[in-house]
Amino acid sequence: EVANRDYQTSHRSIVLPGLINIAAFVSGIPRSTGSHKGSIASGFSMVRVMPMGLDGSITDARTLKLAQLNSKRGGYCDYNFSISATSENANQISQVIDEVGSLFIPFNHLSDNISKVAAVTAHFDSWPTHKPIVTDAKTTDLASILLLASLHNRRIHVTSVTSRDDIRLISLSKQKGLSVTCDVSIYSLYLSRKDYPDCQFLPELSDQEALWEHLAIIDVFSIGSVPFQLARALHPDDQTFKPDPAVGIAEALPLLLTSVVEGKLTIDDIKARLYDNPKRIFELHEQVGTSVEVELERTYTMPKSASWSPFVGKVMRGAVQRVTFAEKTVCLDGSVLPLSPLGKDMSTHSSLPAPSSPALV
Amino acid sequence: EVANRDYQTSHRSIVLPGLINIAAFVSGIPRSTGSHKGSIASGFSMVRVMPMGLDGSITDARTLKLAQLNSKRGGYCDYNFSISATSENANQISQVIDEVGSLFIPFNHLSDNISKVAAVTAHFDSWPTHKPIVTDAKTTDLASILLLASLHNRRIHVTSVTSRDDIRLISLSKQKGLSVTCDVSIYSLYLSRKDYPDCQFLPELSDQEALWEHLAIIDVFSIGSVPFQLARALHPDDQTFKPDPAVGIAEALPLLLTSVVEGKLTIDDIKARLYDNPKRIFELHEQVGTSVEVELERTYTMPKSASWSPFVGKVMRGAVQRVTFAEKTVCLDGSVLPLSPLGKDMSTHSSLPAPSSPALV
Ligand SMILES: [Zn+2]
Ligand SMILES: [Zn+2]
Ligand SMILES: [Zn+2]
Ligand SMILES: [Zn+2]
Ligand SMILES: [Zn+2]
Ligand SMILES: [Zn+2]
Ligand SMILES: [Zn+2]
Ligand SMILES: [Zn+2]
Repeated sequence: EVANRDYQTSHRSIVLPGLINIAAFVSGIPRSTGSHKGSIASGFSMVRVMPMGLDGSITDARTLKLAQLNSKRGGYCDYNFSISATSENANQISQVIDEVGSLFIPFNHLSDNISKVAAVTAHFDSWPTHKPIVTDAKTTDLASILLLASLHNRRIHVTSVTSRDDIRLISLSKQKGLSVTCDVSIYSLYLSRKDYPDCQFLPELSDQEALWEHLAIIDVFSIGSVPFQLARALHPDDQTFKPDPAVGIAEALPLLLTSVVEGKLTIDDIKARLYDNPKRIFELHEQVGTSVEVELERTYTMPKSASWSPFVGKVMRGAVQRVTFAEKTVCLDGSVLPLSPLGKDMSTHSSLPAPSSPALV
Repeated sequence: EVANRDYQTSHRSIVLPGLINIAAFVSGIPRSTGSHKGSIASGFSMVRVMPMGLDGSITDARTLKLAQLNSKRGGYCDYNFSISATSENANQISQVIDEVGSLFIPFNHLSDNISKVAAVTAHFDSWPTHKPIVTDAKTTDLASILLLASLHNRRIHVTSVTSRDDIRLISLSKQKGLSVTCDVSIYSLYLSRKDYPDCQFLPELSDQEALWEHLAIIDVFSIGSVPFQLARALHPDDQTFKPDPAVGIAEALPLLLTSVVEGKLTIDDIKARLYDNPKRIFELHEQVGTSVEVELERTYTMPKSASWSPFVGKVMRGAVQRVTFAEKTVCLDGSVLPLSPLGKDMSTHSSLPAPSSPALV
């Protein structure tokens, strides 16, 4: 236990498995594993890199190779890459299926409206049945891709749900037996357009309330691109401002743990949405000897750090205390210990059993 | 038999039931049953008036009343009205459900994109389960409404399909057991953007080929708004040009019959799509003593008439010879005989059996 945190002693320590960031935002082709220090110190030991790129994304064998090389220097977390669907790359993607964790269908980036249904259909026809598919589709696009997924017997994960209509549609779809799962960005649970009226990517307050009401429908809590978008939106005059890729990670667990103390969530709610469900949905490996010790109930004020955050100064009631990775303590109270990084590219890992040879009679 | 048609004697006469126009276009609130003369003379004895309105449409009890009054003077066909969904009228519509033949959800007119899914959902929640719903949704909107219909256990009819992608989506949806039916405008089977490059409402030639290839998927042949749109598009300089509401009706059967002679269709294909399927899908009444005698194989040139047509001058191989309505011959060779009109508003008719009283044991 670290001294300066222990003046107040009414806290509880709880041990969680290493947490999973299912949608780590990168604005282009990943250049390094730079954000992993922030991730591991915040309790995330597995990072699914989503190329939600503003400046290019992983869409083929070449860009995937580049991302793999750039990340080789080693990070502090295990990680994998997803590949982005475009209107044209349904056929090329087959070459790299075994090297990526999922297919991302960025509905809001596919510019060619006319062929949207045809393009998505082409992807459903070429992507392997059991491998995860993720989309950021909303409203009509969401309903459309849910139909296409259902017609093609595919399960689909909807990332960063922000509206009442969308969470209701997903709820109804689940009731009717569609294979759909979803996540909500942790920022969307704590920030709304009431706080930032111009930020269309945030929920309205009434939408945010609907998200909390449908907690049972939310399979996963995510980081996603919302923190990055908010950081940019709040620095409109600063042309050179580049949000840290780790923006939004440090406050994730403190926000959720504070809600536990306030009785709005349980520790099991968090564990299900940052570990059990992500691991199952994205068929991730077991991280042996990896865990996160969190502290509940101690009151502190979110400090200013290198990474910008709208929550600086907010009173929190929970924190990450110790992170153990592969049996080694790697972080204490938010600091990464001076150890060489142990993270690996797990993109080729599949939790599905290998096809068994025919039984001998 | 009328003399000037009988110079060539190699024709065959075939008797069909009175045909059904499932989507008679009116550009606003119907002002009269004026188009019925053209309809009955062309073999259509039942007219489903679809308010695909440019200048207002039937959206509530008041506008429905107006349409009913305007049509009271009597027409030559039986007819019914459909009511148009808007983003706001889901609740009011319940007052008039018993007085209309179906609900029309005009996806391309609902301007409010944001609440589209919510608005359509509201209609599915308030419209009776078994009453027909029609939509003109295309591409992503089509996929979206098919999902919503499926989630709400509603059958839905898609009107005026024009693209390969849409007919494929409907085909796949049918294969997977969704309750979806569709129609193609007869104009879309015979005209394409190869003929009129600027007419986006017409199929591309390759789309038209796909429509013919998916004939088995097409439940109904319709008139719809395509003829009206084409008439307007081809009179761009004439601000006062008002297409006859009967545009596209006179050539409907001659075009299809010509395809029978050419071996592209059978008489049964036509009967299924202009009588059996429309009657079943829209739960229409039996028109006792009503039939259409058509003539196959005689060659003639489509004459110029009061109603504009792009097919004037085209060589046809089939024609309507005699129409019998309620046991009376009402038309001969395209002319309506001087009889008082017998058509009735059948909007309140339902072919569903009335709920039976519990059996006595
Ligand atoms: Zn402690
Ligand atoms: Zn397919
Ligand atoms: Zn709900
Ligand atoms: Zn493994
Ligand atoms: Zn004859
Ligand atoms: Zn509903
Ligand atoms: Zn097909
Ligand atoms: Zn009846």
